[in-house]
Amino acid sequence: MKNSLEHLLKHIAAFERSELDTILDCFKPKSVKKNTLLLSAGNICREFYYIHTGCLRTAFIDAKGNEMTRLVLTDCNIGTALASFISQKPSVEFIEVLEDTELLAVSHHSFYQLNREYRCWNFFYQRMLEMAYSYQNRRIEQLVTLSAQQRYHQVLNDQPLLIQKLSNKLLASYLDIREETLSRLKSV
Amino acid sequence: MKNSLEHLLKHIAAFERSELDTILDCFKPKSVKKNTLLLSAGNICREFYYIHTGCLRTAFIDAKGNEMTRLVLTDCNIGTALASFISQKPSVEFIEVLEDTELLAVSHHSFYQLNREYRCWNFFYQRMLEMAYSYQNRRIEQLVTLSAQQRYHQVLNDQPLLIQKLSNKLLASYLDIREETLSRLKSV
Repeated sequence: MKNSLEHLLKHIAAFERSELDTILDCFKPKSVKKNTLLLSAGNICREFYYIHTGCLRTAFIDAKGNEMTRLVLTDCNIGTALASFISQKPSVEFIEVLEDTELLAVSHHSFYQLNREYRCWNFFYQRMLEMAYSYQNRRIEQLVTLSAQQRYHQVLNDQPLLIQKLSNKLLASYLDIREETLSRLKSV
Repeated sequence: MKNSLEHLLKHIAAFERSELDTILDCFKPKSVKKNTLLLSAGNICREFYYIHTGCLRTAFIDAKGNEMTRLVLTDCNIGTALASFISQKPSVEFIEVLEDTELLAVSHHSFYQLNREYRCWNFFYQRMLEMAYSYQNRRIEQLVTLSAQQRYHQVLNDQPLLIQKLSNKLLASYLDIREETLSRLKSV
């Protein structure tokens, strides 16, 4: 599992062997069962994840109790409820395990210690933030400029795995459309 | 104008005097008139801004030609069309000057050179990305979980300057609601 994370880290920044060994030591393996809540809304996010195999989602809950999926993480992805992980304030998002998942977790303490000590981790985190920011920007663009149909076709083209992995209810909440609208779009 | 940027930089990271002098030298003053387009959609964003006085906005355009304001930058703010600035690919957003504005601009080349050379700039940029990411996350949360009325009241409480600075048309496009809805909310 750590080989696969090492591959991803080396793809993003030019880590030295000794740095990689220290960094990989900070990531602890976890097996989490489907339907586990890795983080509840209102709690502080204290871990950052590398998903080896499986599937997680982060989601907001509105005042009526409706869940709105923001991010889906599948095999070989990294992420967490990043806003709370950064601020160390209670999270407005929760993290739910959608399939039995094998992951590596690094604590907030270790993450920011690596950030202070290793220039390469600094670049890795910066690159990760740049990608996360750009992803959020596309999400906002799609939410405010595309129709339900266009959003569905965008996911169909760019993230076809989500169509396979997510139930209709969760996919609709990711697209910010009603389940009935999604069913209609799928049947066309 | 550079004193005010220096104050902001020192607030975010522990720069040394010699570093600050080099960094401030990379920022070039510009006076831009109201209604200027600093960046057109489809062009590559090659500058990052510190707004000394004035007001800019970044916005998307949908297929029907409707503009959706994403970000408004006022006095002493930093920012740009960051997704295109990061990727150096054509921007889906434009940047428009809403008031006569005095700003400092740093080129993409200088920005990333500072990032390679100065550890403190590295921390500054990382912190800026963390804040930009968290802002985007709140924007997504508000777009998908709040009603038009709740979004209006959120801006009224958290960013009252936007109510003063933006026309009804632009404020409605920031809130992703119709102008008529905004007029109704304002009159309550």
